[in-house]
Amino acid sequence: MANFDLTRRLARKEGGKILLLVMDGLGGLPIEPDGPTELEAANTPNLDRLAKEGSTGMTIPIARGIEPGSGPAHMALFGYDPLVYDIGRGALEAMGIGLDVGPDDVAARGNFCTVDDNGVITDRRAGRIATDKAAEVVARLTDITLPGVEVTVREVKEHRFALRLRGKGLSPHLHDTDPQAAGAKPLAAVPSVDSPEAKHTAELVNAFIAEAAKRLKGHLPANMLTLRGFAGDPALPKFQDVYKLNPACVAVYPMYRGVASLVGMKIVETDAKDTPADEFKRVAGVWAQHDFVFCHIKYTDSRGEDGDFNAKKAVIEQVDAALPILLDLKPDTLIVTGDHSTPARLKSHSWHPVPLLLWAPATHMPDRAQCFGERECMTGALGQFPATDLMQLALAHAHRLERFGA
Amino acid sequence: MANFDLTRRLARKEGGKILLLVMDGLGGLPIEPDGPTELEAANTPNLDRLAKEGSTGMTIPIARGIEPGSGPAHMALFGYDPLVYDIGRGALEAMGIGLDVGPDDVAARGNFCTVDDNGVITDRRAGRIATDKAAEVVARLTDITLPGVEVTVREVKEHRFALRLRGKGLSPHLHDTDPQAAGAKPLAAVPSVDSPEAKHTAELVNAFIAEAAKRLKGHLPANMLTLRGFAGDPALPKFQDVYKLNPACVAVYPMYRGVASLVGMKIVETDAKDTPADEFKRVAGVWAQHDFVFCHIKYTDSRGEDGDFNAKKAVIEQVDAALPILLDLKPDTLIVTGDHSTPARLKSHSWHPVPLLLWAPATHMPDRAQCFGERECMTGALGQFPATDLMQLALAHAHRLERFGA
Repeated sequence: MANFDLTRRLARKEGGKILLLVMDGLGGLPIEPDGPTELEAANTPNLDRLAKEGSTGMTIPIARGIEPGSGPAHMALFGYDPLVYDIGRGALEAMGIGLDVGPDDVAARGNFCTVDDNGVITDRRAGRIATDKAAEVVARLTDITLPGVEVTVREVKEHRFALRLRGKGLSPHLHDTDPQAAGAKPLAAVPSVDSPEAKHTAELVNAFIAEAAKRLKGHLPANMLTLRGFAGDPALPKFQDVYKLNPACVAVYPMYRGVASLVGMKIVETDAKDTPADEFKRVAGVWAQHDFVFCHIKYTDSRGEDGDFNAKKAVIEQVDAALPILLDLKPDTLIVTGDHSTPARLKSHSWHPVPLLLWAPATHMPDRAQCFGERECMTGALGQFPATDLMQLALAHAHRLERFGA
Repeated sequence: MANFDLTRRLARKEGGKILLLVMDGLGGLPIEPDGPTELEAANTPNLDRLAKEGSTGMTIPIARGIEPGSGPAHMALFGYDPLVYDIGRGALEAMGIGLDVGPDDVAARGNFCTVDDNGVITDRRAGRIATDKAAEVVARLTDITLPGVEVTVREVKEHRFALRLRGKGLSPHLHDTDPQAAGAKPLAAVPSVDSPEAKHTAELVNAFIAEAAKRLKGHLPANMLTLRGFAGDPALPKFQDVYKLNPACVAVYPMYRGVASLVGMKIVETDAKDTPADEFKRVAGVWAQHDFVFCHIKYTDSRGEDGDFNAKKAVIEQVDAALPILLDLKPDTLIVTGDHSTPARLKSHSWHPVPLLLWAPATHMPDRAQCFGERECMTGALGQFPATDLMQLALAHAHRLERFGA
């Protein structure tokens, strides 16, 4: 497993540039028993050439047999053991929309919901209102004040929003107010530990909820809210410190931007409508200023979740077609992989190891893989390895690690 | 490595059924430098088809280079790190013959032996008397009473028996009384820690030995006994708790039944003369009542220990021929492997990784293995992995684990 003390001790400020391209949920399964996976079926001349020239392998995101969520799977790719660094979802959500979560902050994920006249939830997601509708609801709440803390409310996507309280003496140790089922009333915020800070924070949160309920009353369908995943600053070690890298992130979805931000990456502005080619151009735009860029492609995962084998394959082909934009940057180390598998066949994330190619013409060990695909990567030079080891491999191939011992 | 806290947190009560078929000592070595192993040489059309359709890999039972005993090797297959869960052999032996070992119990393995007129051991195994002879010897001891404890003596196999003391305030911390060599006298039971319980238990055990010696005197060849492997209740986490499974065990040999019982499996009645087909029919008999069945085949190991390549191969072929009985049960996840290697060439257990196939048609990743054998499994989808990870893989493939994180 990755060892931050070791990496920190050996990492150098000098060396080659690293580009990490993550296709979310890249790994797949055959639809037909003897057939190809999505990646194997896709026409990917650029990726095939990189796999043929470079090293291949398979990563295990969390542990054998464990189906990863995207948050922990990305933590692992960045070298942070997700069983050690178990980040509260509230912090991820807030960071993902550009609200930083610092040492004085407590953040939570919120849902707008619908309640009946008795206050009982009839729809936990307020009919999945559109994001711009949610922005209107948020506008009713932005000027709520609480004693001694700064309150920030911001829409995320559809019925989801983020809440951040900033002030001294707050605690993230609160239970969710979301009862997780229609037919129940939203719960009050209750401390999950016995501390004055948690008690104080619960009081503040309950005051916020009471005032919000008053303002939302009658405004169907979003006439109430629930909160969950209270979290403070996870205070993660940063890429600058552990890896001596100056990193940037190009990602369209908030959650990935959130994780990247938590580990110290500069978040590059993107547009929700960005194609892979658009994202790659954004990478090119910041390439001169950074020695590490993480670029995230969401739609491989989305189409896998849809169960649409051909659509997932098409996203992979789109990435491959745009790849020359990245290759023109001449990265010293280019890694292409996924954070986890999302086989269209399972319509879900899965635990299956994820194909990976590492192309670093100055240092890579070519193996026998002739193209980029699960079955080729299984017997590659990098073997099957924990995703948390990837950053060390990336640094090494870019000549960014000192020798260990004499 | 397997992580019980994680598995316990993610395991679900619902999901597919799992069948674990263990051929003891399955892994082998070629007899001729360019020749096949026992498994590769065997004609196994059923296993070959499963390997071709499903995933293959190699397990490392304890650690690289470590030759495993059967007890720890099975603990590992069941997900219990044998370096953490180091079970006293006395408890295994007692559990294996159906004597449960609970919190008030201390158990030990016994040998009947032969001593001369001076009490010096001349044969540590009393001429390996037959099991029914040992039962006659045991019959002389069953009514021995000790103050405040219940004494149970039971024959195991040949010259071996199990002793269990049941009562308050006992301790398993006693040294063996077996001097491990002829030409020495049996030792007295001596505490291995300085505690009143150990001292008290040693006194009780010595009283038992003294009374037994009196009763056995003159009854050659079994005119004395030795005791070793004193052990209490290992209080292992149970399959029901960790994996949310309702497990059963079909095994002919006591030790395997013992290990299975310690982890919570229901022990199915078997006959010492059961063939693989007989054992498989017993699996079928309990299949409806369980979501996990472990089935153990002993004779692959025995023939390996004999150094009989062809006989070991024949046992594997016998298993393959009977396999349709198991396939008819339509397990969602079927795993076929060994607990360790026992190459006929070495006439012994060995540290070599063990071939494994995992067949779960709804979720498995087919690899390039075309048949079941060491060299095919080496490049399989599951890679080379610690046996302790197997249960997590089994649960995942049967859709019995929740996602980790969002």
